[in-house]
Amino acid sequence: MAKKNIVVGQSGGPTAVINSSLAGVFSAAKEMGVNKIYGMHHGIQGFLNEDLIDMSEYIKDDKDVELLKRTPSAFLGSCRYKLPKIEGNEATYDKMFDIMDKYDIECLFYIGGNDSMDTIKMLSDYAALKGKPQKFVGVPKTIDNDLPITDHCPGYGSAAKYIASSMKEIIRDNESFGVEKPTVLIVEIMGRHAGWLTAAAALSRGEDCDGPDMIYLPEVTFDVDDFMARVKKLAAEKSSVVIAVSEGIKLADGRFVCELGGGSDFVDAFGHKQLSGCAVVLANKIAAETGLKTRAIEYSTLQRAATHLASLNDINEAFNVGYLAVQAAYDGKTGMMITIDVKNRKPYEVGYGIYDIHQIANVERPVPAEWIINDGTDVSDAYVEYARPLILGELTPMMVNGTPRHITLKNK
Amino acid sequence: MAKKNIVVGQSGGPTAVINSSLAGVFSAAKEMGVNKIYGMHHGIQGFLNEDLIDMSEYIKDDKDVELLKRTPSAFLGSCRYKLPKIEGNEATYDKMFDIMDKYDIECLFYIGGNDSMDTIKMLSDYAALKGKPQKFVGVPKTIDNDLPITDHCPGYGSAAKYIASSMKEIIRDNESFGVEKPTVLIVEIMGRHAGWLTAAAALSRGEDCDGPDMIYLPEVTFDVDDFMARVKKLAAEKSSVVIAVSEGIKLADGRFVCELGGGSDFVDAFGHKQLSGCAVVLANKIAAETGLKTRAIEYSTLQRAATHLASLNDINEAFNVGYLAVQAAYDGKTGMMITIDVKNRKPYEVGYGIYDIHQIANVERPVPAEWIINDGTDVSDAYVEYARPLILGELTPMMVNGTPRHITLKNK
Repeated sequence: MAKKNIVVGQSGGPTAVINSSLAGVFSAAKEMGVNKIYGMHHGIQGFLNEDLIDMSEYIKDDKDVELLKRTPSAFLGSCRYKLPKIEGNEATYDKMFDIMDKYDIECLFYIGGNDSMDTIKMLSDYAALKGKPQKFVGVPKTIDNDLPITDHCPGYGSAAKYIASSMKEIIRDNESFGVEKPTVLIVEIMGRHAGWLTAAAALSRGEDCDGPDMIYLPEVTFDVDDFMARVKKLAAEKSSVVIAVSEGIKLADGRFVCELGGGSDFVDAFGHKQLSGCAVVLANKIAAETGLKTRAIEYSTLQRAATHLASLNDINEAFNVGYLAVQAAYDGKTGMMITIDVKNRKPYEVGYGIYDIHQIANVERPVPAEWIINDGTDVSDAYVEYARPLILGELTPMMVNGTPRHITLKNK
Repeated sequence: MAKKNIVVGQSGGPTAVINSSLAGVFSAAKEMGVNKIYGMHHGIQGFLNEDLIDMSEYIKDDKDVELLKRTPSAFLGSCRYKLPKIEGNEATYDKMFDIMDKYDIECLFYIGGNDSMDTIKMLSDYAALKGKPQKFVGVPKTIDNDLPITDHCPGYGSAAKYIASSMKEIIRDNESFGVEKPTVLIVEIMGRHAGWLTAAAALSRGEDCDGPDMIYLPEVTFDVDDFMARVKKLAAEKSSVVIAVSEGIKLADGRFVCELGGGSDFVDAFGHKQLSGCAVVLANKIAAETGLKTRAIEYSTLQRAATHLASLNDINEAFNVGYLAVQAAYDGKTGMMITIDVKNRKPYEVGYGIYDIHQIANVERPVPAEWIINDGTDVSDAYVEYARPLILGELTPMMVNGTPRHITLKNK
């Protein structure tokens, strides 16, 4: 039977490889003879406004697919929009299914993290409730790496590779000085609740680099006095002190460390606090109390946009989960998410599975407590063994005029 | 006549290619039959403490030279130490010449910027005054690109390439959102007095990227009210607004913009103010006055340490100025600095010269006024034509376990 149309969207914070998953969806749909491949312009929010893109007008050949894999951020545009609960909001859901009917859409794919998987859950629940034929499959994506069931999340490996590589570079920079007094460098890494990204600072360690002196994850309560005592001890022993901290580190009383600096709170559309500045707060405190030279670096969106340094394993896995989502939908699966199953870490052997979305949506997976060591100031070798294969390999960027070339909606 | 020994030092803020110049000095000295190649551990400050390294113990073969070119930050360690004036401080100078005599040092090379070239000037002046035979040649290095006479400075091209490439990535990230309200991103770039680095944000422009909406250099007085009016106008027209600002932008009354946020002043050993945070100050101001979502990103030392994305032209030129410095010294030159002379920008043809250090030391070259356009909010095509060749080409990093491998003093 001839296939009709599909639609795919990207949601939440972008990653270095979120477009690789889009490339996977596009390639599978093309190969399977799907008629039209629609993209949601700015996720479900755009979809609700019937803001759809015919992807074939932008992705015309294999070269464009390769360029899409090398393009950071959400090619289709993203959003932070959470569907309301079904009860009392049937009109919103009916509108979405009307749009799907209007555009002959058989399957909907959503590339995203926890909140986006909730969208797949709600849509598939509503379809079951109303006997609708459309299929809904989730494609995992989050630099936070906090989705359950899947071994890890596409996007994490590349962010971790950026964090580890940049950490090596700025540690070397920090080691340049310190003839008379040590310099203390505090590096702030993303991750509100889960410390996966901050843990990646440990991947900078090797024969040529000792890595950061301490690593603080949000899974452990942060004790300012203990931190200051440890910094002073390190500064007495070393000419360069480097500490990696999660943006989400919190005191015992529940306050975020960034709040100590008088920084404003900002709550995004999902109700998450917008955090920034705990590295600045800590660097200022150390400078004021010790007279040492300090520096604060915040990786900010650089860590999720650095496709020029993406992990090849990550790019390939991101592509594959997108590809497999289309196969699964046409195999009749719905209300599910593709998962990554690691069979062996060294040598790295990876496979894929599919899992009920109800067990995944809105569940956050923290770094296991047994991997957090040295009184909450470091991560163990078990973490490094887990994460190392995820950052391996590179995909050469296509350099034009000295910078990486991307493909965008302007390039129609 | 058999050659005796030389010594080389690195000084000031590191760059992505400062070690390529060190590799050039080392390679030339090896080829010319120099006996021992000493490195100053932490520049002149280490030299004064007789803290010398025999470089051949660390750089053993061609592979090590290649790895040195791929290693960020100062391999030998750096310092920020300015020699005192000769008059009244002869003891310091005599001590330095005693150390040179003790170690049979014929030539001294110093890789650095304005302040470091002052060291070459002072030492060669003292040698002339006292009839000392040693030769002193400067090797230019500064991401700030503010040395006079030379067309540009090694280190600048790689920092500019990082700034342009990362700018493209974070602009794309910023464009992901903005369905309902625009997001305003302020990116803070290094450069206290000269806007060369901030201007490099313009190199992000091309077929796939419009680049930042505005670029503010420290050469132009910053008007907060005019800035706010322009931001509001842009935010009414676009869903993503991106602005590049120099850390050194100043108000008409002489205050730095970063001071408006109540940030502390910090003066380094050279008497420069330590700046940070003008992007945060401006982002907070925009958020408070407009209710728009804002984000501040500071490239900090990432922009001078990103050897994984260094410009091949820059790496090669950095190597060559180091190499030619050794040749020049053994040709009898002293009190001079190697310069880069560009014969043609497209196709790029580069040559090298040598120039009297007295015309270079302590002179800062700003971005030409005629290249700053649109009421001080952008740079012209003439700048882009000047800078484009400096960021061209890449040197593949040696990736080990997912991160770039470096060579360090620990790898003896």
